[in-house]
Amino acid sequence: MADLLIKCMAVLTMDSEGDIINHGEIAVRDNLIYHVGPSGSTPADFKPERVLDYPRMVAMPGLVNCHTHAAMTLFRGYADDLPLMQWLNDKIWPLEALLIPEDIFQGTLLCCAEMIRGGTTTLADMYVEMDQVARAVDEAGLRAVLCRGMIGAGPDGESALAESVEFIQKWHCSAGGRITTMLGPHAPYTCPPVYLKQVIAAAKEMGVGIHIHLAETVDEVKEISDQYGKTPVALMEEVGLFELPVLAAHCVHLSDTDIDILARRQVGIAHNPQSNMKLASGVAPVSRLLHSGALVGLGTDGAASNNNVDMLEEMRTAALLQKLHTCDTSVLPAYQALHMATAGGARALGMQEQIGRLVSGLKADIILLDMHQPHLYPLFDIYAQIVYAAASSDVHTVLVDGRVVMENRRILTLDEDVVMAEAQRCADALVQRSNS
Amino acid sequence: MADLLIKCMAVLTMDSEGDIINHGEIAVRDNLIYHVGPSGSTPADFKPERVLDYPRMVAMPGLVNCHTHAAMTLFRGYADDLPLMQWLNDKIWPLEALLIPEDIFQGTLLCCAEMIRGGTTTLADMYVEMDQVARAVDEAGLRAVLCRGMIGAGPDGESALAESVEFIQKWHCSAGGRITTMLGPHAPYTCPPVYLKQVIAAAKEMGVGIHIHLAETVDEVKEISDQYGKTPVALMEEVGLFELPVLAAHCVHLSDTDIDILARRQVGIAHNPQSNMKLASGVAPVSRLLHSGALVGLGTDGAASNNNVDMLEEMRTAALLQKLHTCDTSVLPAYQALHMATAGGARALGMQEQIGRLVSGLKADIILLDMHQPHLYPLFDIYAQIVYAAASSDVHTVLVDGRVVMENRRILTLDEDVVMAEAQRCADALVQRSNS
Ligand SMILES: [Zn+2]
Ligand SMILES: [Zn+2]
Repeated sequence: MADLLIKCMAVLTMDSEGDIINHGEIAVRDNLIYHVGPSGSTPADFKPERVLDYPRMVAMPGLVNCHTHAAMTLFRGYADDLPLMQWLNDKIWPLEALLIPEDIFQGTLLCCAEMIRGGTTTLADMYVEMDQVARAVDEAGLRAVLCRGMIGAGPDGESALAESVEFIQKWHCSAGGRITTMLGPHAPYTCPPVYLKQVIAAAKEMGVGIHIHLAETVDEVKEISDQYGKTPVALMEEVGLFELPVLAAHCVHLSDTDIDILARRQVGIAHNPQSNMKLASGVAPVSRLLHSGALVGLGTDGAASNNNVDMLEEMRTAALLQKLHTCDTSVLPAYQALHMATAGGARALGMQEQIGRLVSGLKADIILLDMHQPHLYPLFDIYAQIVYAAASSDVHTVLVDGRVVMENRRILTLDEDVVMAEAQRCADALVQRSNS
Repeated sequence: MADLLIKCMAVLTMDSEGDIINHGEIAVRDNLIYHVGPSGSTPADFKPERVLDYPRMVAMPGLVNCHTHAAMTLFRGYADDLPLMQWLNDKIWPLEALLIPEDIFQGTLLCCAEMIRGGTTTLADMYVEMDQVARAVDEAGLRAVLCRGMIGAGPDGESALAESVEFIQKWHCSAGGRITTMLGPHAPYTCPPVYLKQVIAAAKEMGVGIHIHLAETVDEVKEISDQYGKTPVALMEEVGLFELPVLAAHCVHLSDTDIDILARRQVGIAHNPQSNMKLASGVAPVSRLLHSGALVGLGTDGAASNNNVDMLEEMRTAALLQKLHTCDTSVLPAYQALHMATAGGARALGMQEQIGRLVSGLKADIILLDMHQPHLYPLFDIYAQIVYAAASSDVHTVLVDGRVVMENRRILTLDEDVVMAEAQRCADALVQRSNS
């Protein structure tokens, strides 16, 4: 790819608090950040073929969505405001049973378009028909950590694991390194210890991590506790899950001991505040987790329970919710929230040496926010402005792996009109199948 | 003004749930809605000089922001994440003391620009130097219910009331009826009963309502309870406040009796979920209030505690927060949230016969949302799509009082570049004064 120079109002490296380079520039060579510094500091031997000169924009790392089910974008708005079990039993699960591979592909593609428009450059996804998800992510030009969700308790546990292994063999470190993989046991209450031990053995053999839902609801904690006499986190510890790199979604209902375990084991935690609110799951103790040294990233969960994949909004919700929950306005300040959505999320995925910060040598996953908007004036504090006032629509330009995938709010990798039309067509056909 | 016809994908009248006119049209004559119905239903004698034909857009009533302090937009991001009293004592109040009339004007103008871009057509504002606020609202072309905030406990109580009376005499029903006024005693803990009785007498004499902060924090309830032996709501009832039309902001901490009083007295309540979260105030019992028949609208509060005035986001936060708070996913469903931001807000302001619904005879305060965006596909349920997935940036066109104030995201009443530059200049000068 052509050497590229980005010049802007400020660069937020997210390497440490206050590391803001006013009138900064970023040199991009191939898929990497070659240099970051103040205007004019790029070595003279770097001759960019293209300069993006945006004096009213802020450059920051692309956002890292640590937990989603991209294809569920197809269910956006299909069923809301229902009691949880009715929503799952009568609406979501019957529809999921009717999904065909093309639905997964088109739903994921739609999600990718939305993510790019909102500044997300990496997603951690768990679903089924993962070949389709990988194809869509590759086509969109995003970076992703993908896993096949596995229900170990039912008759399909074995085949799901076999499918997962095949998927990992096919896709791990593919798409020029943009796609990596994990094993995805769905949750402690759907995957009994004996199954999890198989999964752990497979993960160790293949050298991949684990993506799991953990301690999401009070019901889960009660069920596991009734059955095993311990919390879901303690059970996972006992089973040996945390000997591997783990990405645990939700972690809402935690004991003090659970928090200690998660911190000590350096488990990556995906906090999904809007999904937790919409499904009335509860509030994750994010501030306590961070104080304990746990690794917390941010996720949107699927669009059936959110209903968008807007990481800027998620970041704001995380900060506001934590202040409310702890009765302390100083908790989860702007920098920390932004960190969770970038460098912290990268760390939760074990990708801190590749993404999440704008420092030389890391992958060139960069977004530009257009600060010249009424809702972003006046400007006192860039972190606070982004976390508490900015919107997805302020994302102007997006680079993933050194490639410009959106410029001036036009996606270059996908035909958005086609993506929207195909998603609607798939959704309509799906609902028709469910009614017949 | 020229007769105008709007044709669109759907019209949400917000007159009752499910009242959605697919392939609808709205005829606008002068400042009023002349006709609403399906395509082709407008009487033949209506010959529009202009047709806005947008087959991918949804028309709905302009959003009603029931509680804000528009000029505080100037403080956006100036101080965040501090303990509440430190934030007020060291940051907000010292800066407020240095405000000059031009700051109020420019800060309000900036806020109006942001509101228009986010689909807000009416705001209820409480601040000082209200001549400047009224000028800015008039210039922007918005509709507003304005009041001068009065601290009755200090030495300026009398002069504030005199100023308020003068402001009302000058501005009530001005700007072609777009501006109306109220009296604005700040709160029970800053306005003792003897002062409130003066305010009530003045309001009765002038035929205006009251805008007040009420039961916002635990501290307020404790202070009033210690001093008067009753809750803030009960104290206001005793003082006679509710004999007037009242708009009460926050109403977070309420007893069952308080809820009964507010419902029986048909007090308008402005719910400000994001401000309540950011300031760690608590969660208003919105669902219980609505069940009791109370009139609940939605507000953003000022940008110092939000930090934007994005009503679509506020609506979504209200719905999600109430589900979380009640542990019930079915609470505050999409239509009810949207209703709070439109017809419900209008009712809370006592303006239900003028705004908040798209029915003939009401003022033509109309917004068009562009549904052709990745985050708004597929489309199953328009209410859910708007409440749970839409963004301010989806607002394409805004009419206030029959006048197009924004089209294709370009504000026609203000020069946005000038507004942003002037706001930054005022903010910089203000901070400079505070440092010298
Ligand atoms: Zn999930
Ligand atoms: Zn207020």
